[in-house]
Amino acid sequence: MKNTFGTAVSVTLFGESHGSEIGAVLDGLAPGLPVDEDFIRHQLSLRRPHGKISTARVEADEFRIVSGVFEGHTTGTPLCIIIPNTNTRSGDYSKGLPRPGHADYTAECKYHGFQDYRGGGHFSGRLTAALVAVGAIAISALRRNGITIGTHISSLAGIPDRPFEDIEADLETLDDLLFPVLSTRAGEAMQAAIEQAAAEGDSVGGVLETAVTGLPAGVGEPWFDTVEGVLAHALFGIPAIKGVEFGDGFGFSELRGSEANDPLRVVGGKVVTSTNRNGGINGGITNGMPLLFRCAVKPTPSIFRDQESVDLSTMKNDILSLKGRHDPAIIHRARVVVDSVTAITLCDLLATRFGTDFPV
Amino acid sequence: MKNTFGTAVSVTLFGESHGSEIGAVLDGLAPGLPVDEDFIRHQLSLRRPHGKISTARVEADEFRIVSGVFEGHTTGTPLCIIIPNTNTRSGDYSKGLPRPGHADYTAECKYHGFQDYRGGGHFSGRLTAALVAVGAIAISALRRNGITIGTHISSLAGIPDRPFEDIEADLETLDDLLFPVLSTRAGEAMQAAIEQAAAEGDSVGGVLETAVTGLPAGVGEPWFDTVEGVLAHALFGIPAIKGVEFGDGFGFSELRGSEANDPLRVVGGKVVTSTNRNGGINGGITNGMPLLFRCAVKPTPSIFRDQESVDLSTMKNDILSLKGRHDPAIIHRARVVVDSVTAITLCDLLATRFGTDFPV
Amino acid sequence: MKNTFGTAVSVTLFGESHGSEIGAVLDGLAPGLPVDEDFIRHQLSLRRPHGKISTARVEADEFRIVSGVFEGHTTGTPLCIIIPNTNTRSGDYSKGLPRPGHADYTAECKYHGFQDYRGGGHFSGRLTAALVAVGAIAISALRRNGITIGTHISSLAGIPDRPFEDIEADLETLDDLLFPVLSTRAGEAMQAAIEQAAAEGDSVGGVLETAVTGLPAGVGEPWFDTVEGVLAHALFGIPAIKGVEFGDGFGFSELRGSEANDPLRVVGGKVVTSTNRNGGINGGITNGMPLLFRCAVKPTPSIFRDQESVDLSTMKNDILSLKGRHDPAIIHRARVVVDSVTAITLCDLLATRFGTDFPV
Amino acid sequence: MKNTFGTAVSVTLFGESHGSEIGAVLDGLAPGLPVDEDFIRHQLSLRRPHGKISTARVEADEFRIVSGVFEGHTTGTPLCIIIPNTNTRSGDYSKGLPRPGHADYTAECKYHGFQDYRGGGHFSGRLTAALVAVGAIAISALRRNGITIGTHISSLAGIPDRPFEDIEADLETLDDLLFPVLSTRAGEAMQAAIEQAAAEGDSVGGVLETAVTGLPAGVGEPWFDTVEGVLAHALFGIPAIKGVEFGDGFGFSELRGSEANDPLRVVGGKVVTSTNRNGGINGGITNGMPLLFRCAVKPTPSIFRDQESVDLSTMKNDILSLKGRHDPAIIHRARVVVDSVTAITLCDLLATRFGTDFPV
Repeated sequence: MKNTFGTAVSVTLFGESHGSEIGAVLDGLAPGLPVDEDFIRHQLSLRRPHGKISTARVEADEFRIVSGVFEGHTTGTPLCIIIPNTNTRSGDYSKGLPRPGHADYTAECKYHGFQDYRGGGHFSGRLTAALVAVGAIAISALRRNGITIGTHISSLAGIPDRPFEDIEADLETLDDLLFPVLSTRAGEAMQAAIEQAAAEGDSVGGVLETAVTGLPAGVGEPWFDTVEGVLAHALFGIPAIKGVEFGDGFGFSELRGSEANDPLRVVGGKVVTSTNRNGGINGGITNGMPLLFRCAVKPTPSIFRDQESVDLSTMKNDILSLKGRHDPAIIHRARVVVDSVTAITLCDLLATRFGTDFPV
Repeated sequence: MKNTFGTAVSVTLFGESHGSEIGAVLDGLAPGLPVDEDFIRHQLSLRRPHGKISTARVEADEFRIVSGVFEGHTTGTPLCIIIPNTNTRSGDYSKGLPRPGHADYTAECKYHGFQDYRGGGHFSGRLTAALVAVGAIAISALRRNGITIGTHISSLAGIPDRPFEDIEADLETLDDLLFPVLSTRAGEAMQAAIEQAAAEGDSVGGVLETAVTGLPAGVGEPWFDTVEGVLAHALFGIPAIKGVEFGDGFGFSELRGSEANDPLRVVGGKVVTSTNRNGGINGGITNGMPLLFRCAVKPTPSIFRDQESVDLSTMKNDILSLKGRHDPAIIHRARVVVDSVTAITLCDLLATRFGTDFPV
Repeated sequence: MKNTFGTAVSVTLFGESHGSEIGAVLDGLAPGLPVDEDFIRHQLSLRRPHGKISTARVEADEFRIVSGVFEGHTTGTPLCIIIPNTNTRSGDYSKGLPRPGHADYTAECKYHGFQDYRGGGHFSGRLTAALVAVGAIAISALRRNGITIGTHISSLAGIPDRPFEDIEADLETLDDLLFPVLSTRAGEAMQAAIEQAAAEGDSVGGVLETAVTGLPAGVGEPWFDTVEGVLAHALFGIPAIKGVEFGDGFGFSELRGSEANDPLRVVGGKVVTSTNRNGGINGGITNGMPLLFRCAVKPTPSIFRDQESVDLSTMKNDILSLKGRHDPAIIHRARVVVDSVTAITLCDLLATRFGTDFPV
Repeated sequence: MKNTFGTAVSVTLFGESHGSEIGAVLDGLAPGLPVDEDFIRHQLSLRRPHGKISTARVEADEFRIVSGVFEGHTTGTPLCIIIPNTNTRSGDYSKGLPRPGHADYTAECKYHGFQDYRGGGHFSGRLTAALVAVGAIAISALRRNGITIGTHISSLAGIPDRPFEDIEADLETLDDLLFPVLSTRAGEAMQAAIEQAAAEGDSVGGVLETAVTGLPAGVGEPWFDTVEGVLAHALFGIPAIKGVEFGDGFGFSELRGSEANDPLRVVGGKVVTSTNRNGGINGGITNGMPLLFRCAVKPTPSIFRDQESVDLSTMKNDILSLKGRHDPAIIHRARVVVDSVTAITLCDLLATRFGTDFPV
């Protein structure tokens, strides 16, 4: 299975950047969940480029729900959302030179030249719009069950945001921010760094940090279908993500066990941990504490500086000068994609655990 | 599927730390691959505890191949290896207090008290012996096809090893090291740090760095079955791994696109990249360069210091004092587990790509 | 996974009978296969109702290929085909009484009343149009590799067609027949039986028999992914199919081993069997002889006679009188659906065996 | 996945007829289910050859539970059962001539000569002992939840058993029968037919009919994961099964819709059908009526008559004369295998529907 992910709840993704439409099929979601098209629109708006720090290609994202919704609720059958591509300028792209950092060369190796190369084709970040559209329904479904997901840019170009403090309140703050940071000052510095990179024809990367509250304990599996493994599998599907860590992640390498182990205690009749360095997961299974993870986002590979590449038809070295419309940073736009993929994956884990009527 | 992983080539893991036997079934491997029991023994020896820096529980790991091998070669049918547990001291364990950082509490939530709690039961690192045994066959199979895997401790307790330089030569060096580092001096400092932690009843974590050479370009899928996603899924199944990053991983967050993009060029009639910050993968698909990734390994949660825990029968706070035999560090032993899981996963990706006769 | 089937090559189906559109995503097909829209149209025409023996609801089936095709060839990425529903008369349907023999009552149990009940919703045979559209591409792909699939009505309402004789020639004959039988006379009798049933407000069932030539030996797996098991899994997904048998199938029950075993012999340097009672499969694996199987098709459950049902809102017995447009037989239309599902499944089995570049 | 089947509950099978041991891993079963080793022994005894109508190779089937059971209950982690092969006479087998009707030739094609050919190797019916052992636990688990499975020989060598009448009572009758028929007289005739065939060095086939009572309505999926499709997939994994039909199955071909549709009515506040021609499934989903299906079992291919075969080393036609110990019929022994595979598959479907704590 290649462009389908999930077991009890699964998502299938299709389309190309410069094709007529893109879309996604979300299958296995419980019947009877209310579908709020305004919320889908809201989520898509968080992904859409805005202002100077994003590409000038702005898509209306006029989605339509083709199946799986009846009288305003999910039916429980496959829910397909289609989004037309309208603002394509295919002339900006030619196949000649593979772009460094992109999938152009690997697509050539895998598809033997038959891939749709325009705008990255099937590899384009454009397809994440479809993930966001169906993800919105998963996010709503989880919220009805007391499960909230939120993500901020924890660092960009070396500039750190403040860490999560009061997670519930922080997640609420993040909800409507187009540039999702917890510290306004850090956000301004980050945006200045993006503009600076853009002015130099360059791009920047960063780290996204996600928190999920309200997850029940006992979800996930030992060994292979750990919550970490399943989530990471899905998250690495998002273009530009090159690292995923849970809790203290790579920070654990400098800790001792006495610091890394989260002490258990009873609070209000419930077992909790007084720290959460393990990010809400032990042995691959949720422990009821907030799920915490971070994704490394590499700088957008499309830049306006000359780059070394190879003319695959002649097998000669050449210089690539990109034209077109590109993002000097995509991390702020990737945030809602991470939330969406997380929501879909958690719906899968929860429906696997509690059956196909979950989330209710 | 819970304790089975993979599609074209899959592994199923079973057993408990204090049960009679543990084992693994490796299915889908091509027929006709030579099976070298000495190499399996060698690999198991790399995982076995040695000296002061490891637990005193040493298992003979007298494996037996139950199926799938005939006249010294794989048959192509499920290959099951069983390893008896001999050196168990179940009396060292009682169920009372869940150990912080372990899966004890989450197992209780998931299995409602029916789990075998002795020595961590099914969650025990002991089961990795079975992964190493079947993984040895996958590693051999890949080597026959020119694909080499190796891992070193890139940092431990804040002490860095030198990075990979000449990867092929470095991998050869690592092969027989019980404590896998590239710099002898760094290795000595690391072992001293482990002994120091052990003396204080504590434990240390670190980072493992893996390289794979010889992979063909064009393996992996866009979106969900990216090489990153599939490998990370498997790697997070290894106990104590809390982060996985490819290429520069989290380091990308401080780079610009002009630094992060690996320039393409032709060398010897072949397309290569002059740097390898993307770790041999673009768009989820191998590009023919060495595959590079790092795993964050948290400190062993079993420590000899008093820890806060909860008596689940009374739901009262309590203090846990661990006895038994534990590792002050498992990272050097986890190395061969990472190699094994990587080999199995790559066999899966390659057999998916090239068919069930691969590797040959 | 619910509405997705397959591993190396998979199909995802979505839509409802009275929704705006239906569609299917075919993923994993090799890149570079020519896509012939006329052939898709031809295949859809074989499924479309014709004349007195079918429903009066005729859909134009104006499909569009949304993704996965570029410059006339498959790209290797997900190929989505969308077909609008145009000729819906939703007023013909109300939810009140579940129709005997249909999925109405079971859908109510499963989806708790949220299903789109109009025209059978997601369960409608209408969705098979999408399967036929993507199946056409799989059929073409197999033909390029010398693999031909064909199906005839081997019996209907007790009237038998003649069996396959010269399979290659018979398959060619069947290609363009709207009513697929090998004996014209049998076909006329069958059609008369359908008209008779229709005149009485009733419907008829039958048996479809399929042959596939050109399959290589050695495809399929022992135990669970037998060719029989995988194909049957897919075929039972087709509405109204209630039995699947391979080779002599249920006829084996009256044979002795000496009759049932197909003798092996060498012909033209190739191992063949002199009979083919096992339908081209031994031990779940193809033996290079034609694949032969039969599907039992139950009579269309939509009939115009009064039927006993239950008003689920009052839980009282009631009498159902159906209106609307229905087929007195669907077996002749189901034929191309069987061919399509078979082709998709065989592409999956072949790509699993020979890798993702197959079929070429 | 090849020798693993299932999603929420899965089974992995390994071993060869003449290897040291065979075994199966049953994963995903809920924790806390009592494990009754006597019942496993009882089930194995139903599969073991008895008297003149079976092979003289009798195995003690001294199984051991290696994992997944603790203090008499399932833990919820993988449950592995191992059964040693003791009574092997490998000398009875040589590789030379592939046996008609067996997997010898297809195994050669698939495994390129590396398969363990002794006694059919991995294809041997011997492996069904491991399925029966783990299946016993699934059968017990379902019974605790009011779900009962039973199978009789509905016909053998053309001799019919009486059909199910009072299903609950009939299933109870079948429980302890070594030769599972509802009519004693039919059973005697069948056994005489087997002995007659044996005397002539031949073998017979038949049909097994299974009923399952107590299944809740609303289990299964439309399109691909229909109850029919999933069960058939698993059942075709059992050696010698060449056809599977649900309800009236192939008998539907001679019915009209007015006969085939099961009228719905309310009885005791519950919706039932007054007939059950659809075998408890509509639209792929259970309707709460007994599940009914039949499996065609071909005659054992091992017979003592001369058969045509091919010497694969010389590619010359040759005559095969089998020696060794073989069953003139395996249908009575296959019965408990069908029950076991059915139980495992239903546990999977139910755990998928109701979550991993089901069956309780």
